Amino acid sequence: MDQCKSVNEAQAARMIEGQDNILILSHQKPDGDTLGSAFAMAHALIQKGKTVRVECSDPFTPKFDMMYGTIDLDNQPQFSPTFVLAVDISDTQLLGPKTEKWADRIDLCIDHHPSNTQYARHLLLDDDAPATTQVISRVLDEMNAPFTPLIADCLYTGLVTDTGCFRYSNVRAQTHTLAARLILCGASHWMINKRMFETKTAARMAIERLVMETLEYGYDKKYAHIVISLDAVKSTGATEDDLEGLSTMPRQIEGVEVCATFKEKGPDLYRISMRGGPLINVSTLCQQFGGGGHARAAGCMIAAPLPEAKRLLARAVGAALGYPEDAKGANADA
Amino acid sequence: MDQCKSVNEAQAARMIEGQDNILILSHQKPDGDTLGSAFAMAHALIQKGKTVRVECSDPFTPKFDMMYGTIDLDNQPQFSPTFVLAVDISDTQLLGPKTEKWADRIDLCIDHHPSNTQYARHLLLDDDAPATTQVISRVLDEMNAPFTPLIADCLYTGLVTDTGCFRYSNVRAQTHTLAARLILCGASHWMINKRMFETKTAARMAIERLVMETLEYGYDKKYAHIVISLDAVKSTGATEDDLEGLSTMPRQIEGVEVCATFKEKGPDLYRISMRGGPLINVSTLCQQFGGGGHARAAGCMIAAPLPEAKRLLARAVGAALGYPEDAKGANADA
Repeated sequence: MDQCKSVNEAQAARMIEGQDNILILSHQKPDGDTLGSAFAMAHALIQKGKTVRVECSDPFTPKFDMMYGTIDLDNQPQFSPTFVLAVDISDTQLLGPKTEKWADRIDLCIDHHPSNTQYARHLLLDDDAPATTQVISRVLDEMNAPFTPLIADCLYTGLVTDTGCFRYSNVRAQTHTLAARLILCGASHWMINKRMFETKTAARMAIERLVMETLEYGYDKKYAHIVISLDAVKSTGATEDDLEGLSTMPRQIEGVEVCATFKEKGPDLYRISMRGGPLINVSTLCQQFGGGGHARAAGCMIAAPLPEAKRLLARAVGAALGYPEDAKGANADA
Repeated sequence: MDQCKSVNEAQAARMIEGQDNILILSHQKPDGDTLGSAFAMAHALIQKGKTVRVECSDPFTPKFDMMYGTIDLDNQPQFSPTFVLAVDISDTQLLGPKTEKWADRIDLCIDHHPSNTQYARHLLLDDDAPATTQVISRVLDEMNAPFTPLIADCLYTGLVTDTGCFRYSNVRAQTHTLAARLILCGASHWMINKRMFETKTAARMAIERLVMETLEYGYDKKYAHIVISLDAVKSTGATEDDLEGLSTMPRQIEGVEVCATFKEKGPDLYRISMRGGPLINVSTLCQQFGGGGHARAAGCMIAAPLPEAKRLLARAVGAALGYPEDAKGANADA
């Protein structure tokens, strides 16, 4: 395969406009940004009379059904694509089983991940954009595709899901400028936010409660940890979706510098997710257990009964925080 | 006193500019919008060489200390004001004990509450603005006061605290346009969001856990309720701040149409806060118990032991939802 060639928004627009029978790919476990990007582009191309299909290895969930519009998901046009567009997909490994067959045939990738592996023939990458829909909005402008309320909903959904509704440090002035424009174009902004951020399943509520009951502190409440047991998952019927973000709960507590989530994976086997602040490098810490990651977010596996796993990790946390070996770590303040 | 006169942004700017020794009032239990409005204006006036003092009946909490800048809160200038400005205060009853002495002497009120009681000599009211800082930003423009990073922080804080960080239905395109400008002016947007939305005290975490343990469902999980007991408040050391928003927790659960919070006020005495959706008018419901409010948010008091209070309210909820009298309401699914 040829080398990956970088293109700008205008070049990307010209490439797409010149084609018909276009296949658009979203990554597996689809989120608001990959689906928002795919459906915004699909609606714009259908308006222009193109034949388009959106594919994803996982089902298009009802959570995002405000974005599907007139596209009949069960009866999308069948064709052999002349152009394959991947959106918000940093690596072909994220395609998943149903769409990985296209991995070597991707003509253009539009993305915002700095980690993009340059697998496509052409790449439009803006790694300063907080969401791929921000990049897509500029390509649509180059195509003179009007932002209908439906397209505005798609673009807005990507913006808010990838920025925690404008909370994160990836937000730029132009993120808000685009949001303003999308609202003027008719985006159902607060309905989307209510659906994305203010709705929890009963199972999520139930597992939150069980997990909060496991919250323990150590080292003058600088360390906090929680446990997600297989029993808790089973008894509440929580899905992977329901578990999302649970491990960040202790990080929100005032004064907590480092936190850990013990997720039970089997008998005496725990996957640990750690989050740290400026005082502690959790990547170094997890490396002691054969894991790794980033300075502020890392993970490892510990094969031991839970009390022993807690003790092992607490000892490493205590050392990293500069506590003497006999300081109480795991549950001193529980 | 003369009748209250409506003014526009330019007129408000002229009035303020013509004065010195200006007292700015925030409402009691101050939030991000009243303090953001007060301190944005104070910093702008100090830049113009004016002598200014900000007063509030409650202490200026550390939570908002990114807004205070060079103002020494313990040693503000003492003077007899020639001009009194109230910001984000809809009614003089919200002044509180320390500042109510100014109630009859307020020259100008800048506000966004539709319920403003027109107590001031002049009123600049934009009840479509999601936050008073949005109105203040326009007055500062009329005064040609540049948005320093500090002023941008103040204005941004008001915007995000009154909109749930751009989530609520009160957000307009111009809200995002202002946010974009504030970021360009140097607002520490994500640090402010982290502080406002992603930090919980250990006491808040602890009381959330205790309150979630009381969650019960009824009527096919269309009804949910929680209890905040005096014991729970006492044992966790939770403050009023820590309790804020707790009563909206059950409303987030998918499928829940109506929810209630039983807050223990004394022996066999409960204050009930209710939230409803399109299917049920909680104001009508609370009126049955001598309370009232809005169709979607209302409250009442019930003087009865907790099981009896739950039973009474559940019966009323069941009737409002159209269930037969013998349907299980209070804790059928708990």
